[in-house]
Amino acid sequence: MPKIVNHDDRREKIARATWQVILDKGMEGATVRNIAKEAGLSLGALRYYFKSQDELLVYAMELVKNRATKRITAVSKKELPPKEMAIEILMEIVPTNAQTRAEMEVWLAFVTYMKPRKHAKLHINDDILQGMEKIMQYLSATGNLRAELDVSIETERLYAFIDGLALHALLHPEHLSPEQIRKTITYHIDQICIF
Amino acid sequence: MPKIVNHDDRREKIARATWQVILDKGMEGATVRNIAKEAGLSLGALRYYFKSQDELLVYAMELVKNRATKRITAVSKKELPPKEMAIEILMEIVPTNAQTRAEMEVWLAFVTYMKPRKHAKLHINDDILQGMEKIMQYLSATGNLRAELDVSIETERLYAFIDGLALHALLHPEHLSPEQIRKTITYHIDQICIF
Repeated sequence: MPKIVNHDDRREKIARATWQVILDKGMEGATVRNIAKEAGLSLGALRYYFKSQDELLVYAMELVKNRATKRITAVSKKELPPKEMAIEILMEIVPTNAQTRAEMEVWLAFVTYMKPRKHAKLHINDDILQGMEKIMQYLSATGNLRAELDVSIETERLYAFIDGLALHALLHPEHLSPEQIRKTITYHIDQICIF
Repeated sequence: MPKIVNHDDRREKIARATWQVILDKGMEGATVRNIAKEAGLSLGALRYYFKSQDELLVYAMELVKNRATKRITAVSKKELPPKEMAIEILMEIVPTNAQTRAEMEVWLAFVTYMKPRKHAKLHINDDILQGMEKIMQYLSATGNLRAELDVSIETERLYAFIDGLALHALLHPEHLSPEQIRKTITYHIDQICIF
């Protein structure tokens, strides 16, 4: 009788293994072979879920999105004044620890990989852009945003600022400590807010 | 009698060919084989200059630095009011055409490639950071910068803002037109300047 496999459990197991391998070995080490080993599965069993390294990369990117969304949702449920809320959410996007650095590393690998594939749509950053729009709307609705600002350009500015900060935090962690990142984000929010 | 080779001419020829291949085929197509073909050289002759794909990547990155430096030096010699000067120089960093997009593509390939190689120093972005410091000093020295600003944090903010904008211009050219890029940069400079 063939073994009955619970696919949800197995996917969860693979998700955890994929993440562990990315944390330990970086995106370069996130091969189907290494993940199978970490998950304690045969290569064949893993290939049932991922036909190729490409599918694995897309899967890792989905993991990143889910993790980031979960963290941001948790922060948004806290009881915080609007400016602090904005700062805390932005701090979840910029990598300041091994976990978020690994997330950003997957993101960078993903966009670099997808770049030459003109037909492939990059939906990833749109999520960040939508997040920036929400933060600006929130600061505006709570009466914190300075009235004379152009909200549409300010959104673009925040979006570029945060992604640039995230890129620098990933590439030059020695240049930007978590404290400096918080200070720079707080400064930006102070500049666009009334009090 | 062996043929006498002018190494400077040949390097120049290889530089032009490398750039053409990157423009035509992207970084993924910038193989030693394709560059040899474009330069009209044998694989062996090209291998005299590049032992590996790694050396080729480093060389392409050097080309990018030289090209960007030349363009920025040319802009800095123009007769322009300080704010316009700052905006024009920043517009040379954010990719707005095929040439500068190719430069950024090399840069992205380079940093992604170098990222897992912890021992390799990433000097590239330090040049951009130094450029940002110069622009802030220039705006300050010409009396354009608002007095109450924290110049050190403003430099970091400009640096993140410009690199984020550059990343978005590369990854989502449909989202950010050259006109929108100029508008966003002008807005930022207006925010930190007096008049």
